[in-house]
Amino acid sequence: MNVIDVHTHVFPRLSRAEGRLLTDAGEPWLREHGDGTGMMMSGDAEYRPVEAGLWDPAARLAAMDTAGVDVQAVSSTPLMFGYEADPGRAGEWCELVNERILDYCAQAPDRLLPLCQVPLQDAATAAAMVTRAASQGHRGVHIGNHVGPRYLDAPEILEFLRHCAEQGMPVLVHPWDLLGSDRMAGRYMLPWLVAMAAETQLTILSLALSGGFDKLPHQLKICFCHGGGSFAYLLGRADNAWHNRDIVRKDSAAPPSAYTGRFHVDSAVFDPAALRLLVHVMGADRVMLGTDYPFPLGEREPGGLIRTCPGLTDAERQLMLGGNAQEFFKTGTS
Amino acid sequence: MNVIDVHTHVFPRLSRAEGRLLTDAGEPWLREHGDGTGMMMSGDAEYRPVEAGLWDPAARLAAMDTAGVDVQAVSSTPLMFGYEADPGRAGEWCELVNERILDYCAQAPDRLLPLCQVPLQDAATAAAMVTRAASQGHRGVHIGNHVGPRYLDAPEILEFLRHCAEQGMPVLVHPWDLLGSDRMAGRYMLPWLVAMAAETQLTILSLALSGGFDKLPHQLKICFCHGGGSFAYLLGRADNAWHNRDIVRKDSAAPPSAYTGRFHVDSAVFDPAALRLLVHVMGADRVMLGTDYPFPLGEREPGGLIRTCPGLTDAERQLMLGGNAQEFFKTGTS
Repeated sequence: MNVIDVHTHVFPRLSRAEGRLLTDAGEPWLREHGDGTGMMMSGDAEYRPVEAGLWDPAARLAAMDTAGVDVQAVSSTPLMFGYEADPGRAGEWCELVNERILDYCAQAPDRLLPLCQVPLQDAATAAAMVTRAASQGHRGVHIGNHVGPRYLDAPEILEFLRHCAEQGMPVLVHPWDLLGSDRMAGRYMLPWLVAMAAETQLTILSLALSGGFDKLPHQLKICFCHGGGSFAYLLGRADNAWHNRDIVRKDSAAPPSAYTGRFHVDSAVFDPAALRLLVHVMGADRVMLGTDYPFPLGEREPGGLIRTCPGLTDAERQLMLGGNAQEFFKTGTS
Repeated sequence: MNVIDVHTHVFPRLSRAEGRLLTDAGEPWLREHGDGTGMMMSGDAEYRPVEAGLWDPAARLAAMDTAGVDVQAVSSTPLMFGYEADPGRAGEWCELVNERILDYCAQAPDRLLPLCQVPLQDAATAAAMVTRAASQGHRGVHIGNHVGPRYLDAPEILEFLRHCAEQGMPVLVHPWDLLGSDRMAGRYMLPWLVAMAAETQLTILSLALSGGFDKLPHQLKICFCHGGGSFAYLLGRADNAWHNRDIVRKDSAAPPSAYTGRFHVDSAVFDPAALRLLVHVMGADRVMLGTDYPFPLGEREPGGLIRTCPGLTDAERQLMLGGNAQEFFKTGTS
């Protein structure tokens, strides 16, 4: 069975001039240093130090070989989403990014699954782009968990998700534009440690409590990164609220725990007890290896947690290491 | 052994005129309806429907008898904190609130432990008030998890906590003024389901990563409500970040997991798997029954989760139901 990592990022080579396609300032671009290191840039600002696997497919494939990862789903980084830009410019930008991701993954088509991005601020354009991207070879779509105040339960985004389901395009949801950043920015990466998990929990609960899942087709394949954030652990609190307050349950057919069969999560929780709880809540058929490669807050030994976590059966480990993802991305048997 | 609930709220009878002591508008007051129901008010706005146990000690004691709870620690509600007011007015307001809480708990001094509140926006005044409140019979201090942008690791708040430790006054920390409310307000109580847990995790991580715990005396007794929010579940992510990024670990002597012996949490997590993980992370000697009585998002059968959760020993259950709290609040043996 193939080991498949569903949560990895790419920042393909994009010049500052190309970044300007998206915005006149704050444009995302990649600064390479020529020694295997580089910097993700936001206009003049240094956003994050990065290494060659992020933009160089050969370096990525070598890392995958070392780690024993057969296949990666390859997503852009949230800095590249462009949801705040004019929809027309964002559409052109996404076309460029998606082309670069296709080129990148074409270096090893059996091992690198390209995921497109879309201008989600314009859900109709985003839907059309998903159809086109699928025809060009993209294997899924990578979206942020919200667009300004609209989470995935907004009617037009539900419509977009319905379209993805009809097209058979899996959706990978990544938190971005993090809540509460004014209280955390510049301090110990707290937005990554606190707000990312809260954003994802908020997104899943919004879909459950709004009746969003009730309205979506069951064939939708949607996966939330970082183990679904704090959703699994805080599910008891949400269910208790649903049972005890009319204003919590008014729009949904069932409590939040009833919807765990409607989505997947990745395994990036970094702790055996947390992974066991996640598997207990979601079922082993809903958890897929995801490492956040190649970022430093990712899992440094891909699959290590799943392989060594006590209390899992071999069958569960196989599902999480690749079986579920093979089904999710229809990668064929091997 | 006594069953002790460390997380309960009171909104003592306070008129709108008394609320005006704190602010000229938006003052907190209690509207009673004469039928055992009432409304927590914020100026003209209805904040939350409530029932008599919140303000009537007889109703509370009857509920405790029914539930088999021997002792409660009794805290104000966060709506009453007054941290945004002028410090002088907030100080007078806290004196009034603390007097009312003392009167309330005097109805059953062996069963109701009064916790004071303080004007935390003025840490020196807050420290002096803790000393005075202790001499008047308060058994601990109930604080919010932050004051505007300052979390508990702000130097003057660390100084306040040091004073509490020296005075032997236990501290109960409750989330309030919730982050990301602009993205959740008015929707399914999402601030209570998402932001409260994130605020508490942020507070604990701030104390750990800033070196705050390194600077605080070990005798400080500090307990975080709602099971410490999402801290326990997301601890692996925080530790992984500490090990892999210099900007995460630069100010602390050890990774966040090294500080679990420095604080307590309550048991309000509403799910057996979550409670087991919490006990696994914190140790059974660090988890205390807390129900959020009498609010509808609280545990409806106090102690039920601890008593029925599989995988705990009887000794662990006894610690969590009362043994730890007896030590925490020095309630004597019985």
